[in-house]
Amino acid sequence: MPLTVRTSQKQVVPIGSYTPESGQRIETVEVAVETVGTLTPEKDNAVLVCHALTGDSHAVGKEGDSGWWDGLIGPGGYIDTNRYFVITMNVLGGCDGTTGPSSVNPATGQPYGSQFPFITIRDMVHVQRLCLDRLGVSSLHAVIGGSMGGMMVLEWGVLYPDRVGKLIPIATAAALSPTAIAYNDVGRQAILSDPDFCEGDYYPGPGPVKGLSIARMMGMITYRTAELFEKRFSRNLQDYGGSQRSSESVFQIESYLRYQGRKLVNRFDANTYLRLLKAMDTHDIGRGRGGKEKALRLIQSPVLVIGIREDMLFPIQQQRELHDGLFRMNKSSRLVEISSEYGHDAFLVDFKQTGREIESFLSKDLL
Amino acid sequence: MPLTVRTSQKQVVPIGSYTPESGQRIETVEVAVETVGTLTPEKDNAVLVCHALTGDSHAVGKEGDSGWWDGLIGPGGYIDTNRYFVITMNVLGGCDGTTGPSSVNPATGQPYGSQFPFITIRDMVHVQRLCLDRLGVSSLHAVIGGSMGGMMVLEWGVLYPDRVGKLIPIATAAALSPTAIAYNDVGRQAILSDPDFCEGDYYPGPGPVKGLSIARMMGMITYRTAELFEKRFSRNLQDYGGSQRSSESVFQIESYLRYQGRKLVNRFDANTYLRLLKAMDTHDIGRGRGGKEKALRLIQSPVLVIGIREDMLFPIQQQRELHDGLFRMNKSSRLVEISSEYGHDAFLVDFKQTGREIESFLSKDLL
Repeated sequence: MPLTVRTSQKQVVPIGSYTPESGQRIETVEVAVETVGTLTPEKDNAVLVCHALTGDSHAVGKEGDSGWWDGLIGPGGYIDTNRYFVITMNVLGGCDGTTGPSSVNPATGQPYGSQFPFITIRDMVHVQRLCLDRLGVSSLHAVIGGSMGGMMVLEWGVLYPDRVGKLIPIATAAALSPTAIAYNDVGRQAILSDPDFCEGDYYPGPGPVKGLSIARMMGMITYRTAELFEKRFSRNLQDYGGSQRSSESVFQIESYLRYQGRKLVNRFDANTYLRLLKAMDTHDIGRGRGGKEKALRLIQSPVLVIGIREDMLFPIQQQRELHDGLFRMNKSSRLVEISSEYGHDAFLVDFKQTGREIESFLSKDLL
Repeated sequence: MPLTVRTSQKQVVPIGSYTPESGQRIETVEVAVETVGTLTPEKDNAVLVCHALTGDSHAVGKEGDSGWWDGLIGPGGYIDTNRYFVITMNVLGGCDGTTGPSSVNPATGQPYGSQFPFITIRDMVHVQRLCLDRLGVSSLHAVIGGSMGGMMVLEWGVLYPDRVGKLIPIATAAALSPTAIAYNDVGRQAILSDPDFCEGDYYPGPGPVKGLSIARMMGMITYRTAELFEKRFSRNLQDYGGSQRSSESVFQIESYLRYQGRKLVNRFDANTYLRLLKAMDTHDIGRGRGGKEKALRLIQSPVLVIGIREDMLFPIQQQRELHDGLFRMNKSSRLVEISSEYGHDAFLVDFKQTGREIESFLSKDLL
């Protein structure tokens, strides 16, 4: 077991061409990767982290530039980087270094834009596997991820059962509910309706700033809970320091959401947002496999299913069904339910309830 | 008691000028009114119906042209038009005959558009009262309404306790929750961001068709429940009869919501939508009255509070708080809770559970 703590390493890994399920080959795919910790000589300590819709490869980061999951992962953390070699990749179609709609299409010298193909959760996983090959990591101790990342975790278990040791899907689903699809479509329509979207070919312009911002506002409501909004904002008005007519008064909840919308636009690409929404909507672990049950049968790894009771986007019932399904098949599955006013976003912030479970699941000999 | 069933009568009642709370006088206000049934010589059988956000005065209608509450109101119905004289008015700021942003401003000869003032729920109620004066109806046997209409019902009890006999607020709140305000703001931003909104001065053009349509999609999700969407649409794809690439495939839930969006645009004005959203957001029964408790003390009428347990926009807790508050003050209040997969919209469709309660409440001697 190496004891040297290395800070996170960033790299871009070229994996050659890749042909997504939809059929149109993407040449020269690159994958943005963050690694933290040291791979053992036996190469048996790699943990792959899968990010959610607006996530990226910056899961752990370093001092002064912490990543989105640094509360969970780090030296001495629940996922201990003194022990595990933690790998996070930006997904195919992303906008943080992995080839996506804003990348230059070598065939035209222009960004792909509208020409970037439709991709699936399975494509994302295949690309992760190709990237791991390049990194010399042939098997994974575990795969972990929440929300869209959790969809990838389950696909890992089905597509590559012989390459993955343990699975930790969090706040996710075998397939999205129609209500979650509905929320996604509100965001999608806001982006598509924005005249600055230009059918997806808006580069080098900023693109559909207003549409993407509305999509983010929509998302943020579903990521949290009414209880949290009540506690944080209640019906308080935003104080802009001047007098306002009541017709112009803005509630703090509105101000907060609009700010979140503007903030996302500065770091995220609208075409990527659309591709990933569609990948989530169309994802169904049972597709082409004779249904969900038959798909889950392919999983060989122990599974730690984590669900949040207040999650309105991935209702706890979906985690229970997942666990019950695996359990009925005599698979090794453990269900952990937590309660959090953060709702769906609890997987990003609330580690007190899940950290020990994850730590213990990763270290136990379960088979 | 008159036994002649009269079909619904439509009229537009001029009530002169009205100055809303925000201060800018509106000249020559007209109110679109539907009446059904016959006013007794004693004028003691009038029931006022208050509509919701996208409602209008067409509550009962007639054969072949039924209104939005004809399942509740009609000859022999739960609200029996053989017995009651039922009055429904389009609200101030509306777009179905009552003066609103799309009405012509006599000072300019052009539609008000952006110049139409900010209005409140209390303004809507004051205008209803002025209209009733013109109709010669000085007191109401009851006022009933759901959602925004329920806000008006409660205001009736506070503003005009000596004019109203009974109150039936349904699926409503003393003040909107921050989460409901958040949903409203997603719709609002979609309208404001649409370039065809033209700052509200889009007449005679169709206006922000895309923005209003998205706002409606947003609303529809919150009016129903995940259970209903699962049952009706599940993850089924819309069949357009041709072959489609999976990137273009559309789920039935998406198709349904987009259709609902387009449908509203054909019958509703975006400026009205914005004015009514803001009236709902800013409504607080305790405003200027020393708080909610003191406001509720002003109510003298028996109240039948009806709430829907699955309502995500006006959570059942709000109905319970309303009832508990009145009950603690020794007011006559009865709480009826129903369960419905229709969620918030149950007040428009599910009369089996509420109809008898309403019927009985209207006919009983309660004081």
